[in-house]
Amino acid sequence: MEKNRLEAFSDGVIAIIITIMVLEMKVTEGINWETLKPLIPKFLSYILSFLFVAIYWVNHHHLLFTIKKVNAAIMWANMNLLFWLSLVPFATAWMGENHFDKITVACYAALALCCGFSYNILQAAICKTYDEATAKRLMTKQSSWKSITSIVLYSIAIPIALFIHPFISGFLFLTVSIMWMIPDKNIERAFEEE
Amino acid sequence: MEKNRLEAFSDGVIAIIITIMVLEMKVTEGINWETLKPLIPKFLSYILSFLFVAIYWVNHHHLLFTIKKVNAAIMWANMNLLFWLSLVPFATAWMGENHFDKITVACYAALALCCGFSYNILQAAICKTYDEATAKRLMTKQSSWKSITSIVLYSIAIPIALFIHPFISGFLFLTVSIMWMIPDKNIERAFEEE
Amino acid sequence: MEKNRLEAFSDGVIAIIITIMVLEMKVTEGINWETLKPLIPKFLSYILSFLFVAIYWVNHHHLLFTIKKVNAAIMWANMNLLFWLSLVPFATAWMGENHFDKITVACYAALALCCGFSYNILQAAICKTYDEATAKRLMTKQSSWKSITSIVLYSIAIPIALFIHPFISGFLFLTVSIMWMIPDKNIERAFEEE
Amino acid sequence: MEKNRLEAFSDGVIAIIITIMVLEMKVTEGINWETLKPLIPKFLSYILSFLFVAIYWVNHHHLLFTIKKVNAAIMWANMNLLFWLSLVPFATAWMGENHFDKITVACYAALALCCGFSYNILQAAICKTYDEATAKRLMTKQSSWKSITSIVLYSIAIPIALFIHPFISGFLFLTVSIMWMIPDKNIERAFEEE
Repeated sequence: MEKNRLEAFSDGVIAIIITIMVLEMKVTEGINWETLKPLIPKFLSYILSFLFVAIYWVNHHHLLFTIKKVNAAIMWANMNLLFWLSLVPFATAWMGENHFDKITVACYAALALCCGFSYNILQAAICKTYDEATAKRLMTKQSSWKSITSIVLYSIAIPIALFIHPFISGFLFLTVSIMWMIPDKNIERAFEEE
Repeated sequence: MEKNRLEAFSDGVIAIIITIMVLEMKVTEGINWETLKPLIPKFLSYILSFLFVAIYWVNHHHLLFTIKKVNAAIMWANMNLLFWLSLVPFATAWMGENHFDKITVACYAALALCCGFSYNILQAAICKTYDEATAKRLMTKQSSWKSITSIVLYSIAIPIALFIHPFISGFLFLTVSIMWMIPDKNIERAFEEE
Repeated sequence: MEKNRLEAFSDGVIAIIITIMVLEMKVTEGINWETLKPLIPKFLSYILSFLFVAIYWVNHHHLLFTIKKVNAAIMWANMNLLFWLSLVPFATAWMGENHFDKITVACYAALALCCGFSYNILQAAICKTYDEATAKRLMTKQSSWKSITSIVLYSIAIPIALFIHPFISGFLFLTVSIMWMIPDKNIERAFEEE
Repeated sequence: MEKNRLEAFSDGVIAIIITIMVLEMKVTEGINWETLKPLIPKFLSYILSFLFVAIYWVNHHHLLFTIKKVNAAIMWANMNLLFWLSLVPFATAWMGENHFDKITVACYAALALCCGFSYNILQAAICKTYDEATAKRLMTKQSSWKSITSIVLYSIAIPIALFIHPFISGFLFLTVSIMWMIPDKNIERAFEEE
């Protein structure tokens, strides 16, 4: 039951994060091209972040599904993840407002890295409550391969945004997102076996 | 239990969508006719969208009630629906701010169409997890008749808004909403039989 | 289980309503008396509305506790109540922004009346699903006495705000709120007997 | 089951409080030092408040875990706590906007005190529903030691902010937060014994 409330709180926070981002797309009076043009980068960065937060929710959902007991370490690791995710609406709006400027894109990549590390910390805190065999079964090879690829791609997205072109970084963000959307058969199978 | 969390997250997102729309009705100092007049189209578009999102919540509620197992396809089809619904506050505010201008009304109709298609995709993803007989029983004739009518009415609302008059489109939106509010006896009966 | 989701959605909407009201107290740079003075009526109207919405949540909680089955009538009566409650942040901000101007106070009273009637409609929709004896037991005399007093006080608050003084109306609002905060022993006893 | 809904509503309100604070960090166009500089105090005050609200959620979670029955006193004591917590986003934004001005920091400390007292009132209301032995076991010595220290530190933070330096007060806030993050073994042990 304790677990239910951790889920409910996390769901609430993530639901609010994903929804308030739309508030940053400020409505303008007048519908000519001049008033609509600044909305395009904001809309693109909204789509990117919706996808980003949605993927975190889905993975978070899978991860917490495996918990039986919530301890202080899990609770605070979860809070840490929510803190970094709560900065996504700000980073999204900042990037959209400044038309994917290289510094804003690099900051977005850095925030994505922080979220990724926080997720891994939460995963480690959860695995500690299991015996070694279960922990290994849940941390499938494919999953850790995805985690490492994400961290590498986000890391190289920072210098690419600063020194080459921010759009290549945006393309890397999208690549990571699509990679995560492909279902991880191993995890689903592991759940079913249980 | 997995299903509970999908419901909780969807409820959270839809609850936020339906409530933050009211934030777009900006409060003004002064209470003469000049300051109140621009609030009228905003208030009308708020009512329209409240009804629109409320109907989606009720139908979503009925639809998820029938699920027993959540798979990746259902999860992402649900996310896709939530994405389009999350754009409703923006479309509502834009339409209200520009006094039901024909282009904004056409965009609203286009968004309503996207929501409708996303709902059908979710329904299809859920039906796939059932045997054929149950799927058929849940997708009653009346329901699909409603879906088709909605899509036809929203589709013709786009050219009507652009070339005839946006208020006729607004009237079509209201017609669709009232049509959905009339309870679908077949669905309720199907649930009770179960 | 259907009931759980109705509760969860209502809880979500009411939680958002009660919390976004604080966003209307806009932060100002500078901390002298000039910048703080306009915050006082906003803060007072925030307290009034927090109490108002909190009482609705508590009563809604008691009311839905008695339901066994959710039908279409209950669902839409609940949506209707949530619609009127969702306008409370706007009415609160408007009243605060205009320093309890008589027209804004009269509108607030009118909105409170709409919420009151919507609550009674929901109560009636729920009572219809019961046999007469249970319905009577739950609709205790004291409760209906409170409902009638509320409606009478809100009704006379409208002309009082317009023609005498808005602060007397504010005092009436507070009286109604305090009246509802005193626990209704009959209801609690009725629950315990069950 | 009644308890579940109190938890769900509290979770919703706290989740919204913790997330809307990020909306106060207004995005600016332009990414030079001039536009970024005012964000620094806002970001620091955001971190401070995120930690503050997160700790309340964790403790609230532990406290409500022990309840078996919700009565009117618990419900209203909980509402009172949520009211004071709902003012945190305002106090945070005000402090950040005015660069940790001494008056804003003193107000923040006063609000923290109000939250602390409200929490103790809720705790007392819950303990009343228990027999003396259980109440004592749950109100462990360490916990009450923490409560008293918090109240003392917040109380002295007010004159320190006004007459010495607001940054010392900020340091005291951080001290209280870190003190609460260290898990309270007694509580966890008490739960496990049960």
